[in-house]
Amino acid sequence: MRMVDLIQKKRDGQELTAEEIKWLIEGYVDGSVPDYQMAAFAMAVYFQGMTTEEISELTMNMVASGDQIDLSAIPGIKVDKHSTGGVGDKVTLILAPLVASFDVPVAKMSGRGLGHTGGTLDKLEAIKGYQIEQTQEAFIEQVQDIGLAVIGQSDNLVKADKLLYALRDVTATVDIIPLIASSVMSKKIAAGADAILLDVTVGDGAFMKNIEDARELAQTMVNLGNAVGRKTVAVLTNMSQPVGRAIGNRLEILEALEILQGQGREDVAHFICELAQIMLKLAGVEKNLPEIRENLTNGKALAKFEAMVEAQGGDLTDLYREPDVAEIVEIVAEEDGYISALPALEFGLFAMKLGAGRAVKTDDLDYETGIVFEKKVGDAVKVGEVVAKIYTNQNLGQKELSDFKKNVKIEQEEVKIREILEIVS
Amino acid sequence: MRMVDLIQKKRDGQELTAEEIKWLIEGYVDGSVPDYQMAAFAMAVYFQGMTTEEISELTMNMVASGDQIDLSAIPGIKVDKHSTGGVGDKVTLILAPLVASFDVPVAKMSGRGLGHTGGTLDKLEAIKGYQIEQTQEAFIEQVQDIGLAVIGQSDNLVKADKLLYALRDVTATVDIIPLIASSVMSKKIAAGADAILLDVTVGDGAFMKNIEDARELAQTMVNLGNAVGRKTVAVLTNMSQPVGRAIGNRLEILEALEILQGQGREDVAHFICELAQIMLKLAGVEKNLPEIRENLTNGKALAKFEAMVEAQGGDLTDLYREPDVAEIVEIVAEEDGYISALPALEFGLFAMKLGAGRAVKTDDLDYETGIVFEKKVGDAVKVGEVVAKIYTNQNLGQKELSDFKKNVKIEQEEVKIREILEIVS
Repeated sequence: MRMVDLIQKKRDGQELTAEEIKWLIEGYVDGSVPDYQMAAFAMAVYFQGMTTEEISELTMNMVASGDQIDLSAIPGIKVDKHSTGGVGDKVTLILAPLVASFDVPVAKMSGRGLGHTGGTLDKLEAIKGYQIEQTQEAFIEQVQDIGLAVIGQSDNLVKADKLLYALRDVTATVDIIPLIASSVMSKKIAAGADAILLDVTVGDGAFMKNIEDARELAQTMVNLGNAVGRKTVAVLTNMSQPVGRAIGNRLEILEALEILQGQGREDVAHFICELAQIMLKLAGVEKNLPEIRENLTNGKALAKFEAMVEAQGGDLTDLYREPDVAEIVEIVAEEDGYISALPALEFGLFAMKLGAGRAVKTDDLDYETGIVFEKKVGDAVKVGEVVAKIYTNQNLGQKELSDFKKNVKIEQEEVKIREILEIVS
Repeated sequence: MRMVDLIQKKRDGQELTAEEIKWLIEGYVDGSVPDYQMAAFAMAVYFQGMTTEEISELTMNMVASGDQIDLSAIPGIKVDKHSTGGVGDKVTLILAPLVASFDVPVAKMSGRGLGHTGGTLDKLEAIKGYQIEQTQEAFIEQVQDIGLAVIGQSDNLVKADKLLYALRDVTATVDIIPLIASSVMSKKIAAGADAILLDVTVGDGAFMKNIEDARELAQTMVNLGNAVGRKTVAVLTNMSQPVGRAIGNRLEILEALEILQGQGREDVAHFICELAQIMLKLAGVEKNLPEIRENLTNGKALAKFEAMVEAQGGDLTDLYREPDVAEIVEIVAEEDGYISALPALEFGLFAMKLGAGRAVKTDDLDYETGIVFEKKVGDAVKVGEVVAKIYTNQNLGQKELSDFKKNVKIEQEEVKIREILEIVS
């Protein structure tokens, strides 16, 4: 077999066989297929796509390229959850303990953030002492003990994806649905869950800018998961504005704790209960929304979160000190009306520049900085009311503040926004 | 500037600026743009093409990536000729001395063959002692002295093309008209000629399989040459059957000598005189076909060829010994009729396997082997008449001989074939 022939086959719109895809991925991982051939192949996929069979073969060969986690020592149906990335997306921090509070084990590996999107691991590291690195044994033991663990992804998981993702990033081949789908699903499958809930974010702050692309990605991943025996459901969720009130690592942990204490914004709590209902159902547990909501107010979900933080060496009491920032800048409304838009991408990038996110992988984070919105899309505001607070260690100039203000859109008509746009299963 | 942005721009169908193309080629040559990014870019060009301005910028930046030959020390208009490759293509060996015999200087750099196509350099090296490597000074001096030199291309010409061609070869990005055009034209422009005749071959033995693609390539190169001040004309020529009688290095030299002695096939002599007329016109010399033909019969073109061979150290007398082959296998017609097809690709590959060509660049050649056709398309044949002779140092099995025979197509109707299909200027 010659790689040049496989590239040409794909370029000319033909389907690769299972053997060809196996050869291609094995060769890429062992170095016999060089980056320049894989780059040409990825670009050909951009234009020609891949069939369901090709995507499935690609994914399973990627899974086989690294370690696979065996969760069989944990009794019951293990459900994993993945978000395609968003701004202020602290959903896992609340959803995982909420699901665990119904005795459904959650053994989750998370990732870091890049660019305007945050990562669950970074948020957990805002908790003093929280250890995201665990051996596989300790990870499984913790889930057996308390029903919940959120750790960093093993370096040995899906080697092909690590190589391929780095290559796609520099060859303009990131936004290709078959490659995104196989990247996400290979990691979920290798991580060992029996069932998977996919949160496919849609909007200017997400990877998928429009509902059509998001739907295609969701359907591709759902088909893929189901085809390989992992029951998979995807929700398309709105990422036109940031999730909840806070963007920034420590600020988002605080918001998660608020919601786990039965407080916080009603819309976020409701949205997370809807996701929990789907995850529980995937694990064979049928609950109605009031039953689920109850565990956010009765302290059961909070207790799971606290148990996890304790097991992983974190100190929650440290969170209640004063934030370690030079300044908290208040942004006030300049007219009466309703908030009509808070573009997620813009605020994600703003928070990144404050140090809450990374422009490149090697950037250091400032866990204290970020933004807290006092008003979200659909909320009424009056002139002079505080819309947002910026937690910063930098001196913000007039230009930055006026850019921030410009992105707070106010209109006279009330705007309604839906969190869950569609469910794909 | 970031290469990933340029790849994406091309991928999304946008036009690159002159600055961007300059940056890209300079970066590729100095190594700051790696092969994997260039491979993704080339594949994006396959799908999105390039504008006339982009191709022109690409070509001129490729020219600037290496040495440029200065032919100004040679008086008059220097006309170069290039073929996009064919089977049995000994045109340069006859055309160059024929044009030189009208006192139009020909200073030509040629290349080697690969796959089923031959290269003029390899054919010249079948002449004992012929030196294809010359310093630039000796090259120019020889053209000043005798009006003709055919040497190997300098290694320092168009560095970007060397890198890019090797990459395209292994990434299924060879057959892309803007990249073929810039590759050919950058070398011609760097080689210093004032005017260029392009022989764009069409048919199964050529790079361009159909007339539409050939026409597009020809027009692209003609526009390019004219845009940068090199008067350029292209002829689309038929490569559905091999050119002339012989395929194989020494055999083709012998055929060239035949034609330079006023013998050989009439169709080939006529075709070459038509090309000579165009080349002479590009150099400002108007001649009719009988005048040109005269120099093939009066020994003037032959004298130029002999002078060149002598100047470059070659020994023509050695050619008249018996061929150094184990066997000459005669293929005879098995029915009466007319030869209707002699597929160039099949016979080119057959000759390659005899050692007359290279499957890979590092293969050694057997200069003695090849095929001589006694009959060509349109010729009448009778049962038992010799159609072709195979000069071989290998034992040919029944399978090979029967494959050879199957490719000699005979029909009852006479088939006419045109050598020059179109002229593009």
